[in-house]
Order: sequence, then C-alpha cells, then structure tokens
Amino acid sequence: MPTLAELDRLRVVLVSSRNALNIGAAARAMSNFGFRHLRVVNPYEPGYREARSAVGAASVLADAEQFSSVSAAVADCTLVVGTTAVRHRELQHVLRRPEEGARIIRKRMASGRVALLFGSEKFGLSNEDLSHCHWLMRVPTREENISMNLGQAVAVCLYELIRDAKAVKRSEKVPLAAAAEVERITEMLLEALRESGYLGRRHVADAEPRIRRLVRRLNLPARDAVIWLGIWRQILWKMGAGKDTKQSGHQGD
Amino acid sequence: MPTLAELDRLRVVLVSSRNALNIGAAARAMSNFGFRHLRVVNPYEPGYREARSAVGAASVLADAEQFSSVSAAVADCTLVVGTTAVRHRELQHVLRRPEEGARIIRKRMASGRVALLFGSEKFGLSNEDLSHCHWLMRVPTREENISMNLGQAVAVCLYELIRDAKAVKRSEKVPLAAAAEVERITEMLLEALRESGYLGRRHVADAEPRIRRLVRRLNLPARDAVIWLGIWRQILWKMGAGKDTKQSGHQGD
Repeated sequence: MPTLAELDRLRVVLVSSRNALNIGAAARAMSNFGFRHLRVVNPYEPGYREARSAVGAASVLADAEQFSSVSAAVADCTLVVGTTAVRHRELQHVLRRPEEGARIIRKRMASGRVALLFGSEKFGLSNEDLSHCHWLMRVPTREENISMNLGQAVAVCLYELIRDAKAVKRSEKVPLAAAAEVERITEMLLEALRESGYLGRRHVADAEPRIRRLVRRLNLPARDAVIWLGIWRQILWKMGAGKDTKQSGHQGD
Repeated sequence: MPTLAELDRLRVVLVSSRNALNIGAAARAMSNFGFRHLRVVNPYEPGYREARSAVGAASVLADAEQFSSVSAAVADCTLVVGTTAVRHRELQHVLRRPEEGARIIRKRMASGRVALLFGSEKFGLSNEDLSHCHWLMRVPTREENISMNLGQAVAVCLYELIRDAKAVKRSEKVPLAAAAEVERITEMLLEALRESGYLGRRHVADAEPRIRRLVRRLNLPARDAVIWLGIWRQILWKMGAGKDTKQSGHQGD
C-alpha cells in the first residue's frame, strides 16, 4: 500500500467534466481512499460550481486547482496516464489493465508526481488529451456495455491504487473450538437425540460416529462453543435427561 | 476471472436504497462487469420507479426482482455477504477486505448462488439485515471519510470480483528496437551534433559513449526506430551533413 507521501503525489485530473454529481463523486472517492489533489481542466462551469457548493462537498473539491489545458495540468508530473473505455488502436498507446497499471503508478509515486486523467462523461479523453499521456489504463468492462460512469471509474482506479495484494492472506481468522469442547457438545447432542427418541435408546449402531462427524463439520468458533454448551445443557435439563447432566445446572457455568 | 455461468450466480441485493441515481449506478456497474441479477428489498418506491424509467437504464434494472425482506431475497443463496463501512465489533461478524472476500465469493460462485448485500445510503445495513450474512466485507476507506457512495461501493466490490490477478504480469509489452537500429540512430545523432557545433568537430573525448548511453536510455520501441531514422536523415540532409548520409535520400526508406 502507498504511504501518505506517495498518495499525495497523485494528481487526479478531470478533463472537460460536465456533471456536478460526477465531479462530486470523483472527489468523494479521492477522499475515501486518501488522495488529496484534484485538478480540473476546462470543466463545464455550472456543473463545477454546483459540485463545489454542494452540501458536504469534500475538502478535495475546495482545494481543487483549475487549468485551461491538459499540458498545464500535468506540467509538474513525471508520469501521465490516461484512462479510456476503448482501445484507440490507431494511437499506438500501450494499454494496461488497472491491475498492472496501478503497480507501475505506485512505483512512480515513490519518486515523483503522477497524473491520472479522466475524460468527459460523453466523449472521454480526446486524441489531443491522450497525446500528453505516456500510456493508457482501461478498466476491463464488457464489450456490450463498455463505458463506465465517471465517478465509478475514478473509484475503481483509485481503489486499485490503494489495494493491498497482501491483504488476501492477512485476514482475520476465527479461532475454532478445541476438540474437547466439540466433544462435550457432541455428547450432549447425542444425549438429546437419545432422550428425544431421534436415536433409539438401545439401537445405536454407527450413530455416534455419524453425529460426531456432523458436529465437526460445523467448524464451531471457540467463542460460540460455550454458548452451544449452555444451549444443550438447558435443553437436556428441560427434557429431563440423565441425572449427571441435570446436576450441572440449567443456566450454564 | 469468473466464467459467465459463475457471474450469473451472483445476486446483488440493494436493501432500502433511496436514490434513483444510486440504484441506476449500481445497475450500470453490474452491466459493465457482466453481472445480471439485481434484487431490491424495500426500496424507496419513487426512487426505484425513477431509476427503472430512466433513459438508458440498464436491462439489469428491467429484470430486477423486488422483495419485502432480506430473508426472502437471499433464500436461494448458499453464501450471503454483507457490505459495511464500519466494523460492527459487537456483532462478532468476520470482516474481510474485498481482496480476500472476493476470492472466497469467486470460489463459492463455482457451485452455488452468492448474495452480496448493500445497505441504504444513509444507514447501511441494519443489525437485522446483517444477521442474515455469513460474513461482512469492507472496502478499506480512510477513517476520516469512511462512507462510500453506494454506486461507487458496488462498482469497487464488483470490480474486485472480476479482477484478474494474473493480468499484472500479462500486459502488452512494447517490442524494443534492436541494437543495430539504435546504433544507426546514435551515429546519425552524433553526426548532427558534430555538424551543428554541439560537439566540437575534432574534440570528441568521451562524447561518443555518453551519447550512446543517452540514446540507449530512451528504450526506443521497435516501431518508432524507423521513424527516428527518417527524422535524423532529413535533419542531416537539411544541415548538409556528410555525403554518405545525403546519398540515402531524405524521405526515409
């Protein structure tokens, strides 16, 4: 994951955006993911004004810088990446999926500013805009509905930048109950099954190992084992089962 | 990446959504990424109606199913995952980042239906809604601005589901120019530098290896080498440089 200093080296550049809600959504995603520097190039003024004056507008919008050309908006950046929904084969630009593009951007953010450009809702980035880019990034959408909403495209690209590949293996694991607890629950369940007539009192055959496996397959969390013990104890008490069970009381330990 | 059959096993469930634009955005992200089955539970009716009647509404919305309870909406699913912005420590739910959660959901989609729940814009999922979930997924947003826009949260979660970890290594590589071409360009550049007076005609010292390294650092793509050869040939011709260069013509090969 990028450091704060690295996050601060990204410039999200919205080119010719029109819609206040989209501009606001782009700023909100930036704020969600910790990016602070928004630049807008020739926005549709009423939309931009509305976005900036909206209730709850992110501070990202208040601090946004406005430019009249892509060239000026990316002047201090050492890597300029355009986003696109289509392939632009004729432009001979390298097209990267976010999975790979974000990896390169993160590396570059370690040493210099990176501009990430998003075009207008209707037309995307123009060929002139794209000519300022070192390469292009395309979120892999379906051919049948290739074009993403601007705010959603910004959210997905920024998410990929802060995504943590190591998180796949680092999630919380639920501690499971120890075998002794599981066996105590199994015994109480068996008792309840005999008592209730589910299992014939005398004819047990291989019922016990079957029930034991059934309980193991529950993969009971440690924190739940004590609850289940209490539940079964109470049920056995109510059923008037074996004396030893009754003696242990009906309100848990 | 999930197969089409697997994508078809996901049920995106919007619970108590209010805003037509958010409902529409959720449907659009589904359509972008190839998910078809939207379920809505107790939507704010005017918002839902507006979303369904919007111009260009995704077919996902036309086919959406409406339910009056979470229980009914997830009844045919074998895994139910809730999304949340906060931790809900008191609920003792396992909380997974999308990087890990999506991996588990993808596995489950191989064999059964999976429900992915999103709560209302204002309140998220209620404790009652969450109690139907096996575990929760949380997009890693900053503490200072934890809450994502609904449409953007849907887009990010679905993107993570169709994300291709292998794409990191599988991107297009630009074929680079062979050493012989790079050396021809280097020679022409050196010629131009001598001719222009940038390098003194006689005093070369280590100029040549310096320039050679300078040109190597450009990592010229193979497809651009021929263009650069033409450019230098033309420049040398205009500068009236060495006869052998002139003889090769000024319009490229």
